[in-house]
Amino acid sequence: MRTGVWLIGARGNVAAVSMVGAKAVANGLTDTTGMVTAGEPVSTLELPAVDSLVFSGHDIRTQSVVETARAASESGGVPPASTIEAVEDDLQAIDDRIETGTAMNCGQAVGNLASEDTPAEQTVPDLVAAIRADYESFVADHSLDRLIVVNVASTEPLINEPERYDTVDAIRSAIDNNNRELPASVLYAYAALDSGHPYVNFTPSTGSNLGGLCELARERGVPHMGQDAKTGETLVKSALAPMFAGRNLRVLSWEGHNILGNTDGLVLEDAANKAGKVKSKDGLLSEILGYETQSRVRIDYTPSLGDRKTAWDHIHFEGFLGTEMKLQFTWEGSDSALAAPLVLDLVRLIAHADAQGESGLQPQLAAFFKSPMAYETHDFSRQHEQLRNYAHQYIDE
Amino acid sequence: MRTGVWLIGARGNVAAVSMVGAKAVANGLTDTTGMVTAGEPVSTLELPAVDSLVFSGHDIRTQSVVETARAASESGGVPPASTIEAVEDDLQAIDDRIETGTAMNCGQAVGNLASEDTPAEQTVPDLVAAIRADYESFVADHSLDRLIVVNVASTEPLINEPERYDTVDAIRSAIDNNNRELPASVLYAYAALDSGHPYVNFTPSTGSNLGGLCELARERGVPHMGQDAKTGETLVKSALAPMFAGRNLRVLSWEGHNILGNTDGLVLEDAANKAGKVKSKDGLLSEILGYETQSRVRIDYTPSLGDRKTAWDHIHFEGFLGTEMKLQFTWEGSDSALAAPLVLDLVRLIAHADAQGESGLQPQLAAFFKSPMAYETHDFSRQHEQLRNYAHQYIDE
Amino acid sequence: MRTGVWLIGARGNVAAVSMVGAKAVANGLTDTTGMVTAGEPVSTLELPAVDSLVFSGHDIRTQSVVETARAASESGGVPPASTIEAVEDDLQAIDDRIETGTAMNCGQAVGNLASEDTPAEQTVPDLVAAIRADYESFVADHSLDRLIVVNVASTEPLINEPERYDTVDAIRSAIDNNNRELPASVLYAYAALDSGHPYVNFTPSTGSNLGGLCELARERGVPHMGQDAKTGETLVKSALAPMFAGRNLRVLSWEGHNILGNTDGLVLEDAANKAGKVKSKDGLLSEILGYETQSRVRIDYTPSLGDRKTAWDHIHFEGFLGTEMKLQFTWEGSDSALAAPLVLDLVRLIAHADAQGESGLQPQLAAFFKSPMAYETHDFSRQHEQLRNYAHQYIDE
Amino acid sequence: MRTGVWLIGARGNVAAVSMVGAKAVANGLTDTTGMVTAGEPVSTLELPAVDSLVFSGHDIRTQSVVETARAASESGGVPPASTIEAVEDDLQAIDDRIETGTAMNCGQAVGNLASEDTPAEQTVPDLVAAIRADYESFVADHSLDRLIVVNVASTEPLINEPERYDTVDAIRSAIDNNNRELPASVLYAYAALDSGHPYVNFTPSTGSNLGGLCELARERGVPHMGQDAKTGETLVKSALAPMFAGRNLRVLSWEGHNILGNTDGLVLEDAANKAGKVKSKDGLLSEILGYETQSRVRIDYTPSLGDRKTAWDHIHFEGFLGTEMKLQFTWEGSDSALAAPLVLDLVRLIAHADAQGESGLQPQLAAFFKSPMAYETHDFSRQHEQLRNYAHQYIDE
Repeated sequence: MRTGVWLIGARGNVAAVSMVGAKAVANGLTDTTGMVTAGEPVSTLELPAVDSLVFSGHDIRTQSVVETARAASESGGVPPASTIEAVEDDLQAIDDRIETGTAMNCGQAVGNLASEDTPAEQTVPDLVAAIRADYESFVADHSLDRLIVVNVASTEPLINEPERYDTVDAIRSAIDNNNRELPASVLYAYAALDSGHPYVNFTPSTGSNLGGLCELARERGVPHMGQDAKTGETLVKSALAPMFAGRNLRVLSWEGHNILGNTDGLVLEDAANKAGKVKSKDGLLSEILGYETQSRVRIDYTPSLGDRKTAWDHIHFEGFLGTEMKLQFTWEGSDSALAAPLVLDLVRLIAHADAQGESGLQPQLAAFFKSPMAYETHDFSRQHEQLRNYAHQYIDE
Repeated sequence: MRTGVWLIGARGNVAAVSMVGAKAVANGLTDTTGMVTAGEPVSTLELPAVDSLVFSGHDIRTQSVVETARAASESGGVPPASTIEAVEDDLQAIDDRIETGTAMNCGQAVGNLASEDTPAEQTVPDLVAAIRADYESFVADHSLDRLIVVNVASTEPLINEPERYDTVDAIRSAIDNNNRELPASVLYAYAALDSGHPYVNFTPSTGSNLGGLCELARERGVPHMGQDAKTGETLVKSALAPMFAGRNLRVLSWEGHNILGNTDGLVLEDAANKAGKVKSKDGLLSEILGYETQSRVRIDYTPSLGDRKTAWDHIHFEGFLGTEMKLQFTWEGSDSALAAPLVLDLVRLIAHADAQGESGLQPQLAAFFKSPMAYETHDFSRQHEQLRNYAHQYIDE
Repeated sequence: MRTGVWLIGARGNVAAVSMVGAKAVANGLTDTTGMVTAGEPVSTLELPAVDSLVFSGHDIRTQSVVETARAASESGGVPPASTIEAVEDDLQAIDDRIETGTAMNCGQAVGNLASEDTPAEQTVPDLVAAIRADYESFVADHSLDRLIVVNVASTEPLINEPERYDTVDAIRSAIDNNNRELPASVLYAYAALDSGHPYVNFTPSTGSNLGGLCELARERGVPHMGQDAKTGETLVKSALAPMFAGRNLRVLSWEGHNILGNTDGLVLEDAANKAGKVKSKDGLLSEILGYETQSRVRIDYTPSLGDRKTAWDHIHFEGFLGTEMKLQFTWEGSDSALAAPLVLDLVRLIAHADAQGESGLQPQLAAFFKSPMAYETHDFSRQHEQLRNYAHQYIDE
Repeated sequence: MRTGVWLIGARGNVAAVSMVGAKAVANGLTDTTGMVTAGEPVSTLELPAVDSLVFSGHDIRTQSVVETARAASESGGVPPASTIEAVEDDLQAIDDRIETGTAMNCGQAVGNLASEDTPAEQTVPDLVAAIRADYESFVADHSLDRLIVVNVASTEPLINEPERYDTVDAIRSAIDNNNRELPASVLYAYAALDSGHPYVNFTPSTGSNLGGLCELARERGVPHMGQDAKTGETLVKSALAPMFAGRNLRVLSWEGHNILGNTDGLVLEDAANKAGKVKSKDGLLSEILGYETQSRVRIDYTPSLGDRKTAWDHIHFEGFLGTEMKLQFTWEGSDSALAAPLVLDLVRLIAHADAQGESGLQPQLAAFFKSPMAYETHDFSRQHEQLRNYAHQYIDE
């Protein structure tokens, strides 16, 4: 069984570290720490082996995967230089297969990253056809049994009036009429789902999060899920907020300040792109707490940090007898190191769902996302229990 | 229905703030923020009303409840001076009912707190008989329908070879033979359970945590639970550790440093007492993580903080590709404000269990304790879900 | 000897707490902790006694000083309610003397605070004449030996092309020609200096920081100084940055995030006003370090904090052999409690300078300001040594 | 001009990183960031060039300098592996010259590090003669113009009744009588000073800090200085405490918790050794503040941190009107990277003093030490100004 992994943004940090990591795991150069699918009981599911994954994808940059990996290594130490060296040939082979993608409606900051070859002038129907053709050539060339499409590209600006696209027909007609407002992530998702390829949206961009694409997934019987992988500050938030809720401690304000130094940070400096990110991060607090509280998430670009991200959160809360108290935390993480294993996890788990004939949204994957498109709760422990329960359901059969 | 609450350590901070709080809630002077039993769905259980609780207890100090409350208010602002003033008469009435207790085997630091009247020279059988008589007089004098005994006294040193007391017979014979090694908390628990009064151990002291007392509770059909209320750093730990476990992030070390300025801090400076506390706090990490990690909990006495406690935790962890990362937090809480509402919660919930004929250990209360005597997990979210499930079981009937 | 203190913004937090504090010190209700002039050797100078200070000022709000003090007390605990009560009569007497001021060019956020009585339609020459008349009536009514004017009003937007006002003539002609671009702080400063009253600019607003006003102060022989009192994050910065410089540790980035909940925070949410603040805070790093580094100062409004301000600073630096390291700090202060004693210090010290015939800028006061108008260094220790040296010069005479 | 550098503890972390750094600077592989002597105006003194330094020393371990450097690199990333590789031949040459030293009275933890060859059974006079002979052979073999002896060995337990050794005679007679209580650091210092070699005590061990050795240095006309290099938490303390003093803010408590993972941390776990360290760190607060405050410094061994050290300091202080506030900081440093450049600085500066005929204690070096043996202040800014003034004195000549 060979599973293809098509990464939108294949020359970005997350993609590069995912590929380095997959090859390093496959070659026994590193262990599976950080991979959810390596932990009990999820690991006992029949998942595609990490060394059976075949990578390719779209990108708009010309910088190679090896160059991205090396730059990440130099700026933040991840992945280790020796690991990159050990898998360099594999990365080069992947890089040769990467196709030029589109950055349509991805905002100015993303556009600036584009190489001159990016076909900005194509019509939308042509773009979709080209994407679809890229998927199919990859499947054919590598005799893949299954192709998983994962969006790991930089965050796009939010789409206006998404309810315009609540039906498959509306989307199809927008594409056919060369509607220039559809962002790249929607085109990639449409092409994947329409061709029957499971789709994961790792980013806050729109992706498959339109009524019409959800309908399409159900029609085609394809699993998909998103959006916005929960890797850092929000992960901690989703672990801590239930504590305040459970103890009936009233959160008066929750302030978060993120500083980060990679391309993601640079892109988020662009206000329009930041809006999408901030909206996504703010969502879960009121759901967990059961009331609205003052909450702010700042994201600032601090080049000296490289791939490292530091978040400072200040939680002001009230307890019994009007007593005011505080919890503050700082999270010093490597974005790529946290995100990359989750890309592999999601590929493996959505491949499993596809193999089992589970189509549409996948609530058991809610723990992976800041804004899960299907979920029961934002509480991380309970989300993770859903995944464990999903696993047990197959294991106990 | 009148429910009696007998507090061991009735003139300490936690007891005083619990009483002030109960009276303030009963009189509408404060709301129920911080009380778990005020949150859905637990609040829909048939619990004794806060204003139906009648308080008394044992203590070895002569300082009155009002004096303790005022000292707490001055040193940390909890409870507010105006609230104490408003309930002062109620507190005075409670104080008049408090009986002199025993500090047997509570360590030198606790012994130093004792007034000269403390009957150090009584035999153990006499002590037990006196405790029992105090309970029964209180029930009779106030026509109580039920009496809940709660240990909120300062931490005792750990008992040696607790397995000596694995049967009711062993405990009875130790008491009868005037065994001077049994600590006060065991005597109070024995007297409560043997007389059919539900018992809660809010502290890390031994209390009912002996095989023989568990047997006794089962025999007598009485509910009991403990031990060591989870109010601060450990609460946060039990919310955060599952995140590392769920994401397969390897905790390399977890260092905690607590500074606090109240009597609890003073007593914990005494090494023997500290041992009990530290052991209890360290327990849950390896259970949640599934492996042993370096973990240390320091507790230091910093008088300037008064009733305020600050914890600094430094969590060093490893992710994918050997990447080292960090989470640090500081928790600035008021011990009394965090503990007091839980005392009221536990009284109400164990009274409910007793009314429903549920005897022995109460796993649905695990979320309240650092070292729950019956539990499925140390994961706070899942513990709290157990309590919600318990509530739903009655509500849905 | 009676020294008058005229506060621009007399009904704001800083003014109110300064007055409460002065009266509390005068009446022996509190000690002088936090007052620089109470520490050796500055305390040995012949300074006006705190109880000889007579307060009044301008404001545009109708809320009384007592109301401001009470609101501050409720939102942040400063000043204590009992202290306000003890000096309430004094505050009321001051309040009766406060005159309605102008908020000309203070920005929309400040304008919103204005009562309806504010004379927005006066011509500039009339405004200046009215201010001048207010100063003189106060001096006459209270037989003051000296009047010190201190700007403690909310931050104004920055002035454009301040070099237009590099001479006394330019300023006079702007006033005479009813130039509507001059902000209120300049008018107050002009009126003070032209009438021979020492002037202190406690805020980042323009105040006397124009070439023409400096010339005027020299001509009139009046001391003045500013600007932007150094009370919190920047104070810590000016203590820490010299350590990096002295050890030749290279600061790669210095990120600061301030959250605060008082009127100051609300006004700073208005972008134009924030610009002034941020510029002032950022100035000193490059001077101390000797090179430009990435530096950012965020100021966000978090109502739940009341008068409390929390700053988080993240300093990323490089040492020997390219080693990257970090210093992070959180500062949890009460703005009013930090600022108020400095107002009293500056009044006393500039009165001393005036009495000694020292006119123009006062470099010995540099330690009090984020952007001292005359200074040798931004290094707090060395600035404070300048003040000590100034004191020794008089003491040793 | 060739300057010899004799390191006591030559195979420890600090020594190894100093040597790697010196060679890397000499070869242009790294810049001089972190070296105080590379900053203006100190850099304009006539100091021995870094590439003119010739290294050797004593140690009791057999692990080579290269091995130590590699282990440090692996555990904390300092020095970079590529740098070690580039200077490996130089390090090997140094290692071949290192002589076996003594660990007399260095405590059990240090003793455990000793190789079996350590001559534990020598008499004291023989030990001193051997040390002296090692110094002289090194000078002769390498035609050195000057030899600087620097103690960078692990911390010894404190000496009892140091006043017994207040005269040269007392020390000589103790040596002659084979007094087994003298610790190794004293023997090394005695041998250096008596032979006219400048001596620097980088550690909290006794070293030259005995009345008799100070007398000896004066007699011989040799400069010496110590003790306990100020590299991390205490450095920050000496930068921050003057801010509280200058602003008359009352420090109510200052709690510090250090966690570190290198040999230093392991040795400090041994209580006797820790006592020396803690005493030294606590000294400066009361001097800077002018009063005693509650202060505690905890040092814990956390192996996962490798050479990294994290300090958390919690400063509780009081301002105007009794307002309680807080400053907290975390310092995440690499001990070796911070210490190594200071070793080079001290060697260069004490060589300068020796060349200028300045004997005895060197107050201009106070900024380098936690417990400077000669100083005017513990305030870092003012200490550093002393060094700048010292430099200006020579430059302006």
